[in-house]
Amino acid sequence: MAERGRGWARAVRGLLLDVSGVLYDSGAGGGVPIAGSAEAVRRIKASGLKLQLCTNETQATRENFVKKLRALGFDISVAEVTAPAPAACRLLRERGLRPHLLVHDDLVPEFAEIDKTNPNCVVLGDAAENFTYANLNEAFRLLIGMEKPVLISLGKGRYYKETDGLKLDVGAYMKALEYACDIQAEVVGKPAKTFFESALAELGVPPEQAIMIGDDIVSDVGGAQQCGMRALQVRTGKYRPSDENHPEVKPDAYVNNLAEAVDIILQQL
Amino acid sequence: MAERGRGWARAVRGLLLDVSGVLYDSGAGGGVPIAGSAEAVRRIKASGLKLQLCTNETQATRENFVKKLRALGFDISVAEVTAPAPAACRLLRERGLRPHLLVHDDLVPEFAEIDKTNPNCVVLGDAAENFTYANLNEAFRLLIGMEKPVLISLGKGRYYKETDGLKLDVGAYMKALEYACDIQAEVVGKPAKTFFESALAELGVPPEQAIMIGDDIVSDVGGAQQCGMRALQVRTGKYRPSDENHPEVKPDAYVNNLAEAVDIILQQL
Repeated sequence: MAERGRGWARAVRGLLLDVSGVLYDSGAGGGVPIAGSAEAVRRIKASGLKLQLCTNETQATRENFVKKLRALGFDISVAEVTAPAPAACRLLRERGLRPHLLVHDDLVPEFAEIDKTNPNCVVLGDAAENFTYANLNEAFRLLIGMEKPVLISLGKGRYYKETDGLKLDVGAYMKALEYACDIQAEVVGKPAKTFFESALAELGVPPEQAIMIGDDIVSDVGGAQQCGMRALQVRTGKYRPSDENHPEVKPDAYVNNLAEAVDIILQQL
Repeated sequence: MAERGRGWARAVRGLLLDVSGVLYDSGAGGGVPIAGSAEAVRRIKASGLKLQLCTNETQATRENFVKKLRALGFDISVAEVTAPAPAACRLLRERGLRPHLLVHDDLVPEFAEIDKTNPNCVVLGDAAENFTYANLNEAFRLLIGMEKPVLISLGKGRYYKETDGLKLDVGAYMKALEYACDIQAEVVGKPAKTFFESALAELGVPPEQAIMIGDDIVSDVGGAQQCGMRALQVRTGKYRPSDENHPEVKPDAYVNNLAEAVDIILQQL
Protein backbone atom coordinates (compact mmCIF):
# COMPACT_ATOMS: atom_id res chain seq x y z
CA MET A 1 0.00 0.00 0.00
CA ALA A 2 2.66 2.44 0.99
CA GLU A 3 5.18 1.23 -1.64
CA ARG A 4 5.63 4.68 -3.09
CA GLY A 5 4.42 6.72 -0.14
CA ARG A 6 0.97 8.15 -0.54
CA GLY A 7 1.82 10.73 -3.17
CA TRP A 8 -0.48 8.82 -5.50
CA ALA A 9 -3.50 10.12 -3.55
CA ARG A 10 -2.77 13.85 -4.05
CA ALA A 11 -4.67 16.33 -6.22
CA VAL A 12 -7.60 14.02 -6.95
CA ARG A 13 -10.94 15.33 -8.16
CA GLY A 14 -12.63 12.19 -9.39
CA LEU A 15 -12.60 8.40 -9.10
CA LEU A 16 -13.35 5.77 -11.70
CA LEU A 17 -14.33 2.51 -10.04
CA ASP A 18 -14.43 -0.94 -11.52
CA VAL A 19 -17.46 -2.77 -10.16
CA SER A 20 -17.17 -6.57 -10.06
CA GLY A 21 -14.40 -7.41 -7.62
CA VAL A 22 -14.31 -3.87 -6.20
CA LEU A 23 -17.89 -3.16 -5.10
CA TYR A 24 -19.13 -6.73 -5.01
CA ASP A 25 -18.36 -10.29 -6.04
CA SER A 26 -20.85 -11.35 -8.69
CA GLY A 27 -22.55 -14.72 -8.53
CA ALA A 28 -25.78 -16.61 -7.99
CA GLY A 29 -28.57 -14.52 -6.46
CA GLY A 30 -26.95 -11.25 -7.55
CA GLY A 31 -23.68 -11.61 -5.69
CA VAL A 32 -22.28 -10.36 -2.40
CA PRO A 33 -21.06 -6.84 -1.53
CA ILE A 34 -17.39 -6.53 -0.58
CA ALA A 35 -17.13 -5.43 3.05
CA GLY A 36 -16.90 -1.66 3.40
CA SER A 37 -17.51 -0.85 -0.26
CA ALA A 38 -21.07 0.51 0.03
CA GLU A 39 -19.96 2.79 2.85
CA ALA A 40 -16.92 3.81 0.79
CA VAL A 41 -19.17 4.91 -2.11
CA ARG A 42 -21.23 7.02 0.30
CA ARG A 43 -18.07 8.63 1.71
CA ILE A 44 -16.77 9.44 -1.79
CA LYS A 45 -20.03 11.20 -2.61
CA ALA A 46 -20.15 13.06 0.73
CA SER A 47 -16.58 14.30 0.15
CA GLY A 48 -17.45 16.13 -3.06
CA LEU A 49 -15.23 13.90 -5.20
CA LYS A 50 -16.75 12.94 -8.51
CA LEU A 51 -17.51 9.29 -9.08
CA GLN A 52 -18.12 7.16 -12.17
CA LEU A 53 -18.35 3.38 -12.41
CA CYS A 54 -16.31 2.11 -15.34
CA THR A 55 -17.29 -1.49 -15.94
CA ASN A 56 -17.00 -4.16 -18.60
CA GLU A 57 -20.21 -5.69 -17.25
CA THR A 58 -22.23 -7.08 -20.13
CA GLN A 59 -24.55 -9.53 -18.40
CA ALA A 60 -27.33 -6.97 -17.93
CA THR A 61 -28.63 -3.67 -19.25
CA ARG A 62 -27.30 -0.66 -17.35
CA GLU A 63 -30.77 -0.19 -15.83
CA ASN A 64 -30.87 -3.71 -14.41
CA PHE A 65 -27.25 -3.57 -13.39
CA VAL A 66 -27.94 -0.42 -11.36
CA LYS A 67 -31.03 -2.03 -9.81
CA LYS A 68 -28.86 -4.91 -8.66
CA LEU A 69 -26.21 -2.58 -7.23
CA ARG A 70 -28.87 -0.57 -5.38
CA ALA A 71 -30.31 -3.79 -3.95
CA LEU A 72 -26.80 -4.60 -2.68
CA GLY A 73 -26.72 -1.24 -0.90
CA PHE A 74 -24.84 0.96 -3.40
CA ASP A 75 -26.11 4.51 -3.95
CA ILE A 76 -25.62 4.58 -7.74
CA SER A 77 -27.63 5.99 -10.67
CA VAL A 78 -27.67 4.87 -14.31
CA ALA A 79 -25.82 8.03 -15.41
CA GLU A 80 -22.95 7.06 -13.12
CA VAL A 81 -22.24 3.87 -15.09
CA THR A 82 -20.03 3.69 -18.18
CA ALA A 83 -20.49 0.27 -19.80
CA PRO A 84 -19.54 -1.31 -23.14
CA ALA A 85 -22.97 -1.94 -24.67
CA PRO A 86 -24.02 1.72 -25.08
CA ALA A 87 -20.54 2.49 -26.45
CA ALA A 88 -20.89 -0.40 -28.91
CA CYS A 89 -24.30 0.88 -30.04
CA ARG A 90 -22.76 4.28 -30.86
CA LEU A 91 -20.02 2.56 -32.87
CA LEU A 92 -22.50 0.32 -34.74
CA ARG A 93 -24.61 3.34 -35.70
CA GLU A 94 -21.61 5.40 -36.81
CA ARG A 95 -20.37 2.65 -39.10
CA GLY A 96 -23.70 1.29 -40.34
CA LEU A 97 -22.98 -2.12 -38.83
CA ARG A 98 -25.76 -4.67 -38.27
CA PRO A 99 -24.70 -7.07 -35.52
CA HIS A 100 -25.24 -10.72 -34.89
CA LEU A 101 -25.26 -10.79 -31.08
CA LEU A 102 -23.50 -13.44 -29.04
CA VAL A 103 -24.22 -11.91 -25.65
CA HIS A 104 -26.01 -12.64 -22.41
CA ASP A 105 -29.82 -12.77 -22.81
CA ASP A 106 -30.17 -9.95 -20.32
CA LEU A 107 -28.02 -7.61 -22.43
CA VAL A 108 -30.09 -7.96 -25.61
CA PRO A 109 -32.46 -5.04 -24.77
CA GLU A 110 -29.48 -2.62 -24.99
CA PHE A 111 -29.48 -3.34 -28.74
CA ALA A 112 -33.25 -2.94 -29.20
CA GLU A 113 -32.89 0.09 -31.49
CA ILE A 114 -30.14 -1.44 -33.64
CA ASP A 115 -30.90 -3.05 -37.00
CA LYS A 116 -29.88 -6.68 -36.71
CA THR A 117 -31.14 -7.98 -40.06
CA ASN A 118 -28.65 -9.56 -42.46
CA PRO A 119 -25.68 -9.15 -40.06
CA ASN A 120 -22.38 -7.72 -41.26
CA CYS A 121 -20.55 -8.04 -37.94
CA VAL A 122 -20.55 -10.07 -34.74
CA VAL A 123 -20.81 -8.46 -31.30
CA LEU A 124 -19.41 -10.65 -28.54
CA GLY A 125 -20.15 -10.07 -24.86
CA ASP A 126 -19.80 -12.10 -21.70
CA ALA A 127 -22.47 -14.52 -22.85
CA ALA A 128 -21.86 -17.00 -19.99
CA GLU A 129 -24.25 -19.96 -20.45
CA ASN A 130 -24.89 -18.74 -24.01
CA PHE A 131 -21.29 -19.70 -24.85
CA THR A 132 -22.46 -23.04 -26.21
CA TYR A 133 -20.68 -24.97 -28.94
CA ALA A 134 -23.64 -24.31 -31.26
CA ASN A 135 -23.65 -20.55 -30.60
CA LEU A 136 -19.89 -20.25 -31.04
CA ASN A 137 -20.13 -22.17 -34.32
CA GLU A 138 -22.90 -19.88 -35.52
CA ALA A 139 -20.87 -16.74 -34.80
CA PHE A 140 -17.81 -18.34 -36.39
CA ARG A 141 -19.66 -19.27 -39.59
CA LEU A 142 -21.03 -15.76 -39.97
CA LEU A 143 -17.56 -14.27 -39.55
CA ILE A 144 -15.75 -16.70 -41.85
CA GLY A 145 -18.41 -16.06 -44.49
CA MET A 146 -17.81 -12.28 -44.50
CA GLU A 147 -15.48 -10.78 -47.04
CA LYS A 148 -13.90 -8.70 -44.28
CA PRO A 149 -14.98 -10.16 -40.93
CA VAL A 150 -15.76 -7.59 -38.21
CA LEU A 151 -15.73 -8.89 -34.64
CA ILE A 152 -16.56 -6.40 -31.89
CA SER A 153 -15.75 -7.63 -28.41
CA LEU A 154 -17.26 -6.03 -25.32
CA GLY A 155 -14.07 -6.15 -23.28
CA LYS A 156 -11.24 -8.65 -23.46
CA GLY A 157 -11.02 -9.84 -19.87
CA ARG A 158 -9.47 -13.24 -19.27
CA TYR A 159 -11.63 -14.29 -16.33
CA TYR A 160 -13.54 -12.96 -13.38
CA LYS A 161 -14.49 -14.20 -9.97
CA GLU A 162 -18.01 -15.20 -9.02
CA THR A 163 -19.06 -16.37 -5.59
CA ASP A 164 -18.69 -20.00 -6.75
CA GLY A 165 -15.29 -19.56 -8.41
CA LEU A 166 -13.42 -18.14 -11.38
CA LYS A 167 -15.22 -17.96 -14.74
CA LEU A 168 -13.88 -17.48 -18.25
CA ASP A 169 -14.56 -13.97 -19.50
CA VAL A 170 -15.35 -12.69 -22.98
CA GLY A 171 -11.66 -12.30 -23.89
CA ALA A 172 -11.11 -16.05 -23.96
CA TYR A 173 -13.93 -16.52 -26.47
CA MET A 174 -12.73 -13.49 -28.44
CA LYS A 175 -9.35 -15.23 -28.80
CA ALA A 176 -11.06 -18.43 -29.96
CA LEU A 177 -12.89 -16.60 -32.76
CA GLU A 178 -9.85 -14.47 -33.64
CA TYR A 179 -7.78 -17.61 -34.09
CA ALA A 180 -10.43 -19.56 -35.99
CA CYS A 181 -11.00 -16.68 -38.44
CA ASP A 182 -7.43 -15.31 -38.44
CA ILE A 183 -8.68 -11.83 -37.56
CA GLN A 184 -8.28 -9.21 -34.83
CA ALA A 185 -11.31 -8.16 -32.81
CA GLU A 186 -12.09 -4.53 -32.06
CA VAL A 187 -12.46 -4.13 -28.31
CA VAL A 188 -15.13 -1.83 -26.90
CA GLY A 189 -14.68 -1.55 -23.14
CA LYS A 190 -11.65 -1.56 -20.87
CA PRO A 191 -8.73 -1.42 -21.65
CA ALA A 192 -9.58 0.45 -24.88
CA LYS A 193 -8.39 4.05 -24.62
CA THR A 194 -11.55 5.45 -26.21
CA PHE A 195 -13.62 3.72 -23.55
CA PHE A 196 -11.66 5.21 -20.65
CA GLU A 197 -11.89 8.59 -22.39
CA SER A 198 -15.69 8.28 -22.52
CA ALA A 199 -15.73 7.43 -18.81
CA LEU A 200 -13.50 10.44 -18.03
CA ALA A 201 -15.77 12.69 -20.11
CA GLU A 202 -18.75 11.47 -18.11
CA LEU A 203 -16.77 11.95 -14.90
CA GLY A 204 -15.94 15.49 -16.02
CA VAL A 205 -12.36 15.35 -14.77
CA PRO A 206 -9.08 15.29 -16.74
CA PRO A 207 -6.99 12.09 -16.52
CA GLU A 208 -4.29 13.61 -14.33
CA GLN A 209 -6.88 14.42 -11.64
CA ALA A 210 -8.56 11.00 -11.76
CA ILE A 211 -7.74 7.66 -10.16
CA MET A 212 -8.97 4.33 -11.48
CA ILE A 213 -9.53 1.61 -8.87
CA GLY A 214 -9.87 -1.96 -10.09
CA ASP A 215 -9.04 -5.60 -9.48
CA ASP A 216 -7.77 -6.35 -13.01
CA ILE A 217 -4.09 -5.60 -13.38
CA VAL A 218 -4.26 -5.34 -17.18
CA SER A 219 -7.72 -4.06 -18.10
CA ASP A 220 -8.21 -1.69 -15.16
CA VAL A 221 -4.74 -0.65 -14.05
CA GLY A 222 -2.81 -0.92 -17.30
CA GLY A 223 -5.60 0.59 -19.39
CA ALA A 224 -6.13 3.58 -17.10
CA GLN A 225 -2.41 4.30 -16.85
CA GLN A 226 -2.21 4.29 -20.65
CA CYS A 227 -4.72 7.15 -20.56
CA GLY A 228 -2.64 9.21 -18.14
CA MET A 229 -4.57 8.31 -15.01
CA ARG A 230 -3.23 6.94 -11.78
CA ALA A 231 -4.50 3.46 -11.02
CA LEU A 232 -4.77 1.28 -7.92
CA GLN A 233 -5.21 -2.45 -7.71
CA VAL A 234 -7.41 -3.72 -4.90
CA ARG A 235 -6.60 -7.04 -3.27
CA THR A 236 -10.21 -8.19 -3.68
CA GLY A 237 -12.12 -9.84 -6.52
CA LYS A 238 -9.92 -11.67 -8.98
CA TYR A 239 -6.71 -10.18 -7.53
CA ARG A 240 -4.00 -12.84 -7.21
CA PRO A 241 -0.67 -12.36 -5.40
CA SER A 242 1.15 -13.15 -8.66
CA ASP A 243 -0.35 -9.94 -10.12
CA GLU A 244 2.22 -8.06 -8.02
CA ASN A 245 4.95 -9.51 -10.27
CA HIS A 246 3.25 -8.56 -13.54
CA PRO A 247 5.98 -8.08 -16.14
CA GLU A 248 4.45 -4.98 -17.72
CA VAL A 249 1.96 -3.28 -15.42
CA LYS A 250 2.76 -1.73 -12.04
CA PRO A 251 -0.11 0.01 -10.21
CA ASP A 252 0.52 3.37 -8.54
CA ALA A 253 -0.38 1.53 -5.35
CA TYR A 254 -1.97 -1.62 -3.99
CA VAL A 255 -4.77 -1.32 -1.47
CA ASN A 256 -6.45 -4.10 0.45
CA ASN A 257 -9.89 -2.98 -0.67
CA LEU A 258 -11.92 0.02 -1.80
CA ALA A 259 -12.54 1.17 1.78
CA GLU A 260 -8.81 1.46 2.41
CA ALA A 261 -8.27 3.37 -0.85
CA VAL A 262 -10.99 5.83 0.11
CA ASP A 263 -9.55 6.25 3.63
CA ILE A 264 -6.19 7.28 2.20
CA ILE A 265 -7.61 9.50 -0.55
CA LEU A 266 -9.91 11.36 1.82
CA GLN A 267 -7.05 11.97 4.27
CA GLN A 268 -5.16 13.79 1.49
CA LEU A 269 -8.04 16.05 0.47
CA MET B 1 -2.44 -28.72 -60.31
CA ALA B 2 0.33 -28.40 -62.83
CA GLU B 3 1.76 -25.19 -61.33
CA ARG B 4 5.25 -26.61 -61.00
CA GLY B 5 5.00 -29.39 -63.55
CA ARG B 6 4.58 -32.82 -62.05
CA GLY B 7 8.06 -33.18 -60.65
CA TRP B 8 6.51 -33.29 -57.22
CA ALA B 9 5.18 -36.79 -57.95
CA ARG B 10 8.57 -38.40 -58.62
CA ALA B 11 10.46 -40.90 -56.46
CA VAL B 12 7.60 -41.57 -54.08
CA ARG B 13 7.46 -44.66 -51.90
CA GLY B 14 4.75 -43.76 -49.43
CA LEU B 15 1.78 -41.50 -48.87
CA LEU B 16 0.49 -39.92 -45.68
CA LEU B 17 -3.18 -39.05 -46.01
CA ASP B 18 -5.23 -36.72 -43.92
CA VAL B 19 -8.69 -38.22 -43.43
CA SER B 20 -11.48 -35.70 -42.82
CA GLY B 21 -11.81 -33.57 -45.94
CA VAL B 22 -9.65 -35.98 -48.00
CA LEU B 23 -11.30 -39.39 -47.63
CA TYR B 24 -14.69 -38.18 -46.41
CA ASP B 25 -16.60 -35.22 -45.06
CA SER B 26 -17.52 -35.89 -41.43
CA GLY B 27 -21.00 -35.19 -40.16
CA ALA B 28 -24.24 -36.65 -38.88
CA GLY B 29 -24.64 -40.40 -39.49
CA GLY B 30 -20.89 -40.89 -39.94
CA GLY B 31 -20.36 -38.55 -42.85
CA VAL B 32 -20.10 -38.96 -46.61
CA PRO B 33 -17.18 -40.34 -48.65
CA ILE B 34 -15.57 -37.91 -51.08
CA ALA B 35 -16.12 -39.17 -54.62
CA GLY B 36 -13.28 -41.37 -55.88
CA SER B 37 -11.41 -41.53 -52.56
CA ALA B 38 -12.25 -45.14 -51.61
CA GLU B 39 -11.15 -46.28 -55.08
CA ALA B 40 -8.02 -44.12 -54.74
CA VAL B 41 -7.06 -45.89 -51.49
CA ARG B 42 -7.49 -49.27 -53.23
CA ARG B 43 -5.30 -48.12 -56.13
CA ILE B 44 -2.56 -46.89 -53.78
CA LYS B 45 -2.46 -50.26 -52.07
CA ALA B 46 -2.52 -52.20 -55.36
CA SER B 47 0.41 -50.10 -56.63
CA GLY B 48 2.73 -51.21 -53.83
CA LEU B 49 3.03 -47.68 -52.41
CA LYS B 50 2.96 -47.55 -48.62
CA LEU B 51 0.04 -45.81 -47.00
CA GLN B 52 -0.57 -44.34 -43.56
CA LEU B 53 -3.47 -42.16 -42.43
CA CYS B 54 -2.22 -39.19 -40.43
CA THR B 55 -5.19 -37.63 -38.70
CA ASN B 56 -5.97 -35.21 -35.88
CA GLU B 57 -9.27 -37.02 -35.39
CA THR B 58 -10.11 -37.11 -31.70
CA GLN B 59 -13.84 -37.76 -31.73
CA ALA B 60 -13.46 -41.54 -31.54
CA THR B 61 -11.00 -44.27 -30.56
CA ARG B 62 -8.86 -45.48 -33.44
CA GLU B 63 -10.83 -48.75 -33.42
CA ASN B 64 -14.16 -47.01 -33.88
CA PHE B 65 -12.71 -44.53 -36.33
CA VAL B 66 -11.50 -47.40 -38.51
CA LYS B 67 -14.91 -49.12 -38.22
CA LYS B 68 -16.53 -45.95 -39.53
CA LEU B 69 -14.05 -45.65 -42.40
CA ARG B 70 -14.59 -49.29 -43.35
CA ALA B 71 -18.37 -48.75 -43.32
CA LEU B 72 -17.80 -45.84 -45.72
CA GLY B 73 -15.95 -48.21 -48.07
CA PHE B 74 -12.31 -47.57 -47.11
CA ASP B 75 -9.99 -50.58 -46.88
CA ILE B 76 -8.09 -49.43 -43.77
CA SER B 77 -6.76 -51.22 -40.66
CA VAL B 78 -6.09 -49.79 -37.18
CA ALA B 79 -2.31 -50.06 -37.68
CA GLU B 80 -2.62 -47.76 -40.69
CA VAL B 81 -3.88 -44.86 -38.55
CA THR B 82 -1.63 -42.39 -36.71
CA ALA B 83 -3.79 -40.33 -34.34
CA PRO B 84 -3.11 -37.92 -31.44
CA ALA B 85 -4.64 -39.83 -28.52
CA PRO B 86 -2.20 -42.77 -28.51
CA ALA B 87 0.66 -40.28 -28.92
CA ALA B 88 -0.68 -38.27 -25.98
CA CYS B 89 -0.90 -41.40 -23.83
CA ARG B 90 2.78 -42.13 -24.50
CA LEU B 91 3.66 -38.56 -23.50
CA LEU B 92 1.53 -38.70 -20.33
CA ARG B 93 3.20 -41.93 -19.22
CA GLU B 94 6.71 -40.66 -19.98
CA ARG B 95 6.17 -37.55 -17.86
CA GLY B 96 4.02 -38.99 -15.08
CA LEU B 97 1.15 -36.67 -15.98
CA ARG B 98 -2.39 -37.36 -14.75
CA PRO B 99 -4.85 -35.68 -17.11
CA HIS B 100 -8.16 -34.01 -16.65
CA LEU B 101 -9.84 -34.81 -19.99
CA LEU B 102 -11.85 -32.28 -21.95
CA VAL B 103 -12.46 -34.50 -24.95
CA HIS B 104 -15.27 -36.13 -26.90
CA ASP B 105 -17.07 -38.87 -24.93
CA ASP B 106 -16.13 -41.39 -27.60
CA LEU B 107 -12.40 -40.70 -27.13
CA VAL B 108 -12.35 -41.40 -23.39
CA PRO B 109 -11.64 -45.17 -23.78
CA GLU B 110 -8.23 -44.31 -25.35
CA PHE B 111 -7.21 -43.06 -21.89
CA ALA B 112 -8.57 -46.09 -20.00
CA GLU B 113 -5.12 -47.17 -18.79
CA ILE B 114 -4.02 -43.69 -17.71
CA ASP B 115 -4.21 -42.55 -14.06
CA LYS B 116 -6.62 -39.62 -13.97
CA THR B 117 -6.81 -39.08 -10.20
CA ASN B 118 -5.80 -35.70 -8.80
CA PRO B 119 -5.04 -34.20 -12.24
CA ASN B 120 -1.82 -32.29 -12.87
CA CYS B 121 -2.54 -31.40 -16.50
CA VAL B 122 -5.44 -30.86 -18.89
CA VAL B 123 -5.79 -32.77 -22.16
CA LEU B 124 -7.93 -30.97 -24.70
CA GLY B 125 -9.40 -32.67 -27.76
CA ASP B 126 -12.10 -31.85 -30.26
CA ALA B 127 -14.78 -32.17 -27.59
CA ALA B 128 -17.59 -30.80 -29.84
CA GLU B 129 -20.81 -30.74 -27.78
CA ASN B 130 -18.69 -31.20 -24.64
CA PHE B 131 -17.31 -27.69 -25.21
CA THR B 132 -19.85 -26.26 -22.80
CA TYR B 133 -19.31 -23.13 -20.73
CA ALA B 134 -19.28 -25.30 -17.58
CA ASN B 135 -16.69 -27.75 -18.97
CA LEU B 136 -14.44 -24.95 -20.23
CA ASN B 137 -14.64 -23.26 -16.83
CA GLU B 138 -13.75 -26.52 -15.10
CA ALA B 139 -10.66 -27.02 -17.27
CA PHE B 140 -9.72 -23.37 -16.79
CA ARG B 141 -9.97 -23.54 -13.00
CA LEU B 142 -7.82 -26.65 -12.84
CA LEU B 143 -5.15 -24.99 -14.99
CA ILE B 144 -5.16 -21.63 -13.21
CA GLY B 145 -4.88 -23.47 -9.90
CA MET B 146 -1.69 -25.32 -10.94
CA GLU B 147 1.68 -23.91 -10.00
CA LYS B 148 2.87 -24.57 -13.55
CA PRO B 149 -0.18 -25.21 -15.74
CA VAL B 150 0.25 -27.95 -18.36
CA LEU B 151 -2.22 -27.91 -21.25
CA ILE B 152 -1.87 -30.66 -23.86
CA SER B 153 -3.88 -30.03 -27.01
CA LEU B 154 -4.69 -32.84 -29.44
CA GLY B 155 -4.10 -30.76 -32.55
CA LYS B 156 -4.52 -27.04 -33.03
CA GLY B 157 -6.84 -26.92 -36.04
CA ARG B 158 -8.93 -23.79 -36.49
CA TYR B 159 -12.02 -25.45 -37.93
CA TYR B 160 -13.17 -28.36 -40.03
CA LYS B 161 -16.01 -29.07 -42.36
CA GLU B 162 -18.91 -31.33 -41.52
CA THR B 163 -21.75 -32.15 -43.85
CA ASP B 164 -23.85 -29.42 -42.20
CA GLY B 165 -21.17 -26.74 -42.26
CA LEU B 166 -17.91 -25.53 -40.72
CA LYS B 167 -17.24 -26.29 -37.05
CA LEU B 168 -14.74 -24.80 -34.62
CA ASP B 169 -11.87 -27.19 -33.98
CA VAL B 170 -9.82 -27.81 -30.86
CA GLY B 171 -7.33 -25.03 -31.70
CA ALA B 172 -9.90 -22.32 -31.05
CA TYR B 173 -10.57 -23.65 -27.55
CA MET B 174 -6.87 -24.16 -26.98
CA LYS B 175 -6.37 -20.45 -27.70
CA ALA B 176 -9.17 -19.54 -25.27
CA LEU B 177 -7.48 -21.46 -22.43
CA GLU B 178 -4.01 -20.25 -23.39
CA TYR B 179 -5.19 -16.64 -23.18
CA ALA B 180 -7.19 -17.09 -19.97
CA CYS B 181 -4.24 -18.74 -18.19
CA ASP B 182 -1.43 -16.85 -20.00
CA ILE B 183 0.23 -20.12 -21.00
CA GLN B 184 1.29 -21.98 -24.14
CA ALA B 185 -0.25 -25.36 -24.87
CA GLU B 186 1.82 -28.34 -25.99
CA VAL B 187 0.36 -29.67 -29.23
CA VAL B 188 0.22 -33.41 -29.85
CA GLY B 189 -0.94 -34.04 -33.42
CA LYS B 190 -0.41 -32.22 -36.69
CA PRO B 191 1.45 -29.89 -37.26
CA ALA B 192 3.84 -31.00 -34.48
CA LYS B 193 7.04 -32.32 -35.99
CA THR B 194 7.25 -35.27 -33.56
CA PHE B 195 3.79 -36.37 -34.67
CA PHE B 196 4.68 -36.39 -38.36
CA GLU B 197 7.87 -38.24 -37.48
CA SER B 198 5.82 -40.93 -35.70
CA ALA B 199 3.61 -41.25 -38.78
CA LEU B 200 6.66 -41.55 -41.06
CA ALA B 201 8.14 -44.22 -38.76
CA GLU B 202 4.90 -46.17 -39.01
CA LEU B 203 4.89 -45.63 -42.78
CA GLY B 204 8.49 -46.91 -42.93
CA VAL B 205 9.58 -44.34 -45.49
CA PRO B 206 11.96 -41.37 -45.11
CA PRO B 207 10.46 -37.90 -45.49
CA GLU B 208 12.02 -37.22 -48.90
CA GLN B 209 10.21 -40.26 -50.33
CA ALA B 210 6.85 -39.43 -48.78
CA ILE B 211 4.02 -37.12 -49.82
CA MET B 212 1.44 -35.74 -47.40
CA ILE B 213 -2.01 -35.08 -48.87
CA GLY B 214 -4.38 -32.90 -46.86
CA ASP B 215 -7.01 -30.19 -46.95
CA ASP B 216 -5.47 -28.01 -44.21
CA ILE B 217 -2.95 -25.56 -45.59
CA VAL B 218 -1.23 -25.04 -42.22
CA SER B 219 -1.55 -28.29 -40.24
CA ASP B 220 -1.21 -30.72 -43.14
CA VAL B 221 0.79 -28.93 -45.81
CA GLY B 222 2.92 -26.60 -43.70
CA GLY B 223 3.57 -29.20 -41.01
CA ALA B 224 4.63 -31.92 -43.47
CA GLN B 225 6.90 -29.58 -45.41
CA GLN B 226 8.61 -28.61 -42.13
CA CYS B 227 9.52 -32.28 -41.80
CA GLY B 228 11.07 -32.46 -45.26
CA MET B 229 8.11 -34.06 -47.01
CA ARG B 230 6.38 -32.88 -50.12
CA ALA B 231 2.77 -31.90 -49.48
CA LEU B 232 -0.33 -31.45 -51.63
CA GLN B 233 -3.48 -29.54 -50.81
CA VAL B 234 -6.71 -31.06 -52.08
CA ARG B 235 -9.54 -28.78 -53.13
CA THR B 236 -12.02 -30.75 -51.01
CA GLY B 237 -13.02 -30.60 -47.32
CA LYS B 238 -12.29 -27.28 -45.69
CA TYR B 239 -10.20 -26.04 -48.64
CA ARG B 240 -11.03 -22.42 -49.48
CA PRO B 241 -9.80 -20.55 -52.57
CA SER B 242 -8.14 -17.99 -50.29
CA ASP B 243 -5.81 -20.76 -49.08
CA GLU B 244 -4.00 -20.38 -52.41
CA ASN B 245 -2.84 -16.94 -51.26
CA HIS B 246 -1.57 -18.11 -47.89
CA PRO B 247 1.25 -15.77 -46.85
CA GLU B 248 3.53 -18.50 -45.48
CA VAL B 249 2.63 -21.91 -46.84
CA LYS B 250 2.79 -22.98 -50.49
CA PRO B 251 1.96 -26.62 -51.28
CA ASP B 252 4.12 -28.53 -53.75
CA ALA B 253 0.92 -28.77 -55.78
CA TYR B 254 -2.85 -28.37 -55.62
CA VAL B 255 -5.04 -31.24 -56.72
CA ASN B 256 -8.80 -31.24 -57.11
CA ASN B 257 -9.15 -34.32 -54.92
CA LEU B 258 -7.37 -37.45 -53.74
CA ALA B 259 -8.30 -39.38 -56.86
CA GLU B 260 -6.54 -36.84 -59.05
CA ALA B 261 -3.45 -36.89 -56.83
CA VAL B 262 -3.29 -40.68 -57.09
CA ASP B 263 -3.76 -40.59 -60.88
CA ILE B 264 -0.74 -38.35 -61.24
CA ILE B 265 1.43 -40.18 -58.72
CA LEU B 266 0.73 -43.59 -60.26
CA GLN B 267 1.55 -42.27 -63.74
CA GLN B 268 5.03 -41.35 -62.47
CA LEU B 269 5.78 -44.73 -60.90
